[in-house]
Amino acid sequence: MDEPLVLHEDDLPVERWDDPSRGSVVWRTLFSGDRTATSGMTVGIAELPPGEPDPGPAHRHAPPEVYYLLAGEGVMEIDGAPTPVRAGSAVFIPGLAEHRLVNTGTTTLRLLYAFGIDSFADVTYLFPGEPVAGS
Amino acid sequence: MDEPLVLHEDDLPVERWDDPSRGSVVWRTLFSGDRTATSGMTVGIAELPPGEPDPGPAHRHAPPEVYYLLAGEGVMEIDGAPTPVRAGSAVFIPGLAEHRLVNTGTTTLRLLYAFGIDSFADVTYLFPGEPVAGS
Repeated sequence: MDEPLVLHEDDLPVERWDDPSRGSVVWRTLFSGDRTATSGMTVGIAELPPGEPDPGPAHRHAPPEVYYLLAGEGVMEIDGAPTPVRAGSAVFIPGLAEHRLVNTGTTTLRLLYAFGIDSFADVTYLFPGEPVAGS
Repeated sequence: MDEPLVLHEDDLPVERWDDPSRGSVVWRTLFSGDRTATSGMTVGIAELPPGEPDPGPAHRHAPPEVYYLLAGEGVMEIDGAPTPVRAGSAVFIPGLAEHRLVNTGTTTLRLLYAFGIDSFADVTYLFPGEPVAGS
């Protein structure tokens, strides 16, 4: 059962991939059905540090995703096509499109990400060279 | 067919309700299937001016909605319960929950809103005292 929920990003723990080869992105989960009594939306705030030697590989997942850039500047790559982005830019990533965001600025790049699905646990990330879970 | 899309909010037209009794909120549509070759996500940026004499009535709609506060401060009311919010706050509004955001600060309140549905055209807004379209 969904419940109204109001929270603040500063109160949430910072998360990162266990495997450092996926890049040094960190994020805070705002809403995800495995954490919160919510459904239909999975949303969080991600940060990419500046001067990152390895921005991590491009990756794919089945659900479409939206980014909204909160701070900083970078280059969004979708299916190999690069586009500059900055605070106020918004990105629609179709399902299974290969994508990567590179911080090309001198400050932390901050973005909101959102999926129209119940839970982050339902997003299977496909990274090159990694076996697909369950396959 | 969904296509990758990168845009910037500053390039988008400002929209508002035709009926001023719904309040003076203005918004820009980032992604909505009736405007963009996208599906599964409907996202935009809304602004509430400060010192607004009439913040508009609380309203409801079937799909759940998420707000993320970009700037300013206000009070979020969901099913009559008020909670203070500020930049960095995030709100989950369950489907059909009555909700209203009031700008209580001295600056413009800015927020991102997101639905996990194809198009804003699929959101039927239920305002008190207004007939429901099609009923």
